[in-house]
Amino acid sequence: MEPKLVVHNTLSRRKEVFEPINPPHVGMYVCGPTVYGDAHLGHARSAIVFDLVFRYLQHLGYKVRYVRNITDVGHLENDADSGEDKIAKKARLEQLEPMEVVQYFTDRYHSDMAKLNNLSPSIEPRASGHIIEQIQMIEDILDNNLAYESEGSVYFDVEKYNRQYHYGKLSGRVLDDLMSNTRDLDGQGEKRNPFDFALWKKAQPEHIMRWPSRWSKGFPGWHLECSAMSARYLGERFDIHGGGMDLLFPHHESEIAQSVAANDTDPVKYWLHNNMITVNGQKMGKSLGNFITLGEFFSGNHPSLTQAFSPMTIRFFILQAHYRSTLDFSNDALLAAEKGYERFMKALNTLTKLQASPVSSVEVEPIRQNCYDAMNDDFNSPMVIASLFEAVRIINSVNDKKETLNTADLNLLRETFSVFTGDILGLKPESGSGADNSVLDGLMQLVLDLRLNAKTAKDYATADKIRDQLSKIGIVVKDTKEGATWEMN
Amino acid sequence: MEPKLVVHNTLSRRKEVFEPINPPHVGMYVCGPTVYGDAHLGHARSAIVFDLVFRYLQHLGYKVRYVRNITDVGHLENDADSGEDKIAKKARLEQLEPMEVVQYFTDRYHSDMAKLNNLSPSIEPRASGHIIEQIQMIEDILDNNLAYESEGSVYFDVEKYNRQYHYGKLSGRVLDDLMSNTRDLDGQGEKRNPFDFALWKKAQPEHIMRWPSRWSKGFPGWHLECSAMSARYLGERFDIHGGGMDLLFPHHESEIAQSVAANDTDPVKYWLHNNMITVNGQKMGKSLGNFITLGEFFSGNHPSLTQAFSPMTIRFFILQAHYRSTLDFSNDALLAAEKGYERFMKALNTLTKLQASPVSSVEVEPIRQNCYDAMNDDFNSPMVIASLFEAVRIINSVNDKKETLNTADLNLLRETFSVFTGDILGLKPESGSGADNSVLDGLMQLVLDLRLNAKTAKDYATADKIRDQLSKIGIVVKDTKEGATWEMN
Repeated sequence: MEPKLVVHNTLSRRKEVFEPINPPHVGMYVCGPTVYGDAHLGHARSAIVFDLVFRYLQHLGYKVRYVRNITDVGHLENDADSGEDKIAKKARLEQLEPMEVVQYFTDRYHSDMAKLNNLSPSIEPRASGHIIEQIQMIEDILDNNLAYESEGSVYFDVEKYNRQYHYGKLSGRVLDDLMSNTRDLDGQGEKRNPFDFALWKKAQPEHIMRWPSRWSKGFPGWHLECSAMSARYLGERFDIHGGGMDLLFPHHESEIAQSVAANDTDPVKYWLHNNMITVNGQKMGKSLGNFITLGEFFSGNHPSLTQAFSPMTIRFFILQAHYRSTLDFSNDALLAAEKGYERFMKALNTLTKLQASPVSSVEVEPIRQNCYDAMNDDFNSPMVIASLFEAVRIINSVNDKKETLNTADLNLLRETFSVFTGDILGLKPESGSGADNSVLDGLMQLVLDLRLNAKTAKDYATADKIRDQLSKIGIVVKDTKEGATWEMN
Repeated sequence: MEPKLVVHNTLSRRKEVFEPINPPHVGMYVCGPTVYGDAHLGHARSAIVFDLVFRYLQHLGYKVRYVRNITDVGHLENDADSGEDKIAKKARLEQLEPMEVVQYFTDRYHSDMAKLNNLSPSIEPRASGHIIEQIQMIEDILDNNLAYESEGSVYFDVEKYNRQYHYGKLSGRVLDDLMSNTRDLDGQGEKRNPFDFALWKKAQPEHIMRWPSRWSKGFPGWHLECSAMSARYLGERFDIHGGGMDLLFPHHESEIAQSVAANDTDPVKYWLHNNMITVNGQKMGKSLGNFITLGEFFSGNHPSLTQAFSPMTIRFFILQAHYRSTLDFSNDALLAAEKGYERFMKALNTLTKLQASPVSSVEVEPIRQNCYDAMNDDFNSPMVIASLFEAVRIINSVNDKKETLNTADLNLLRETFSVFTGDILGLKPESGSGADNSVLDGLMQLVLDLRLNAKTAKDYATADKIRDQLSKIGIVVKDTKEGATWEMN
């Protein structure tokens, strides 16, 4: 019925018709957060973009298994000078426990994602919970002679792999260029080539997280968890792998290499990458000092912010750009998003009150069609929003009796607007700042008006009655030169 | 300053002064949920009881690491007649994935616990994430000759252990009695004695969750995860182990045996067990058909419930009983808890408005002292609640000008009531039903009164102004025989 969904595949650098390997099932893996700090706008973008994909695929009737990992195998270290022996003597409870840090930031991440109205993934596997699978994958790669052990660590042999397969097929990087561009880093002495990457690292004494293996007490390399966990929950070959563009190389390139080296299977049919968020055109990052956490957006508590921005404003802001475009942060852009979001929510409310007419003076079907066309064209959410703004215009015109809709068109408008706004874009009314407060503000404006009228008419009984009743429910009125103000006690 | 905290230790069957092994640190491990179903009142009780312990220990200044596990290694099976080969042929995405079930029920458990205002534990380790630690513990027990392999499984040798140590020290069970009371169960043929328990089970073909080991592809025994994970995060010997009384035997008894057999260390200093919830005096359980989930309580959607009961009502109900007493569920008991909770919240609100007097007509210090005495006497929350009801009485009397408090006493009352109600008992105002609506209701009562007065005085301009402004903010007024009613549009 609908035209086919087309997605941009980073692997082919083209848009391709989306045909899942095993319909109606769809397997989707997205690189999740490293839970050693608070989530920022970049985390929000990746999570919202793939939430949009998840929601739309489900809307189309696919049974989606959406796996998003939690990277909890980190690099927390004890003080460099406190070696193994010293640590062993300390009571376990006195030590820094990485898992306590993991729990803290995972809880905060989940809370932020829920506020942004992102659906929970089907499975959220943790790297630390899949060490066995990762060790097994290293064994498979070693069996195929595409990795080597060195001083208790295991490295992927990129050059040898590249002779048989193609290291660089996703990112377009050329190995020769890489060879001349690598710097000397920690552990380089153990490697055959500087661009070889670790599958297993022997733990230095100061490393807290470590597991036994036949090579050493150590921990898995960063790229490995995604290969091992996607294969475990989605199979050796699955439909969609998503993530931020910054993960394209070396992370995703190395994921392909690992899976091919272990299973001789190209793991992913469609690679989807969301673009970055910039601040005044610059990359956002901790080191650049232009880094704002989601909590800071929600509270407005950051010197670069002129005010607080609600989770739904952030969501609207992110969906207003296509996921493959860069998105520049500014207070003005967020203010515009806030206005747009509020117009949507108001229209959603107005829509419930509209009355049908015998005839329609305006067409609704093209809006519905445009929304589907936009989503089917590589999840083009800004085009969906543009069409929904046209719907908002019609809703307001019908409300103002400037346009009319018959029953069928009104129902179509209601369904289209609520399905695309709510189910697919994932926008919802916000409690607190939204409806509740505007009702309270409106009521208080009325009550203070009535009190002023009573005073003007020298009806002091009514004026006193108002003050007493307000005081009883905890509202204090203050008379100032500019008029009466009020606050909750 | 305060008298010392005394806790009932199941191990000694006595109350003992609480002296942590490594102050100011406290390590506490509590058996968490098996996430293959929704949480019920029993889960709520255990979580609330140990949340109370966690909150009070923190209030006393201890640095508590609170570990509560998630049992996600379960017994989900494919159809019995679909063997290994048939499964291997199916696409991974078409298979039932236990981790998807785990994610679903873990999310719901977290949501329920947050509604009950339980603090998040410091670490929530999952059994499936600690297979390596469990296998290592089995190796240690095998090295000490207190377990044996049989047909790919590994069993704990209870009789041999009992010759060296004491199997039954926690539960008081006697091995000879156990020997004559065991039935023939699955896998009994592989065991030397029927009461031996599995440390590792070889997976049958229909078992989905399985990991490689030198004995077989299989999964760890149920008791093992708690021993391995508590040792990993709290050390081989730690302060408090909590859980429901139903876990005393064989689960906790076997935990002790495993730790002693692996490390020669009695793992826990204080064993704390909460008692069960009964329904009309009967044990609650799925098989008895008297099983109500927390979601059903919150919605009221269960034939045994006369109405919905809010999370704070459930919390109040549970805290009204001492944790070592049985607690009988009934609608009447919950209604009483609801009333009690509402009196507390009203008093909390009234407390903010009280005015100090020059002299006090009533003493506050004994209330504070009674609260501490009660908590220090093995976390006696019902005694705390009784003292706080006395505080409520004073708050209301001062509000009614029947009693007076000087500034120091008023401050002491404020601090005692808010610290014990909020920080320690973990009770908080509920949104929706609580403050928000009472303000709205109060304002609307005032506005409708003013409108009636205007109508009576034939001041139709004011009456119309009120109706218009209400309509603008989405409130519809209906005039009925009984007077005007209103609703949000």
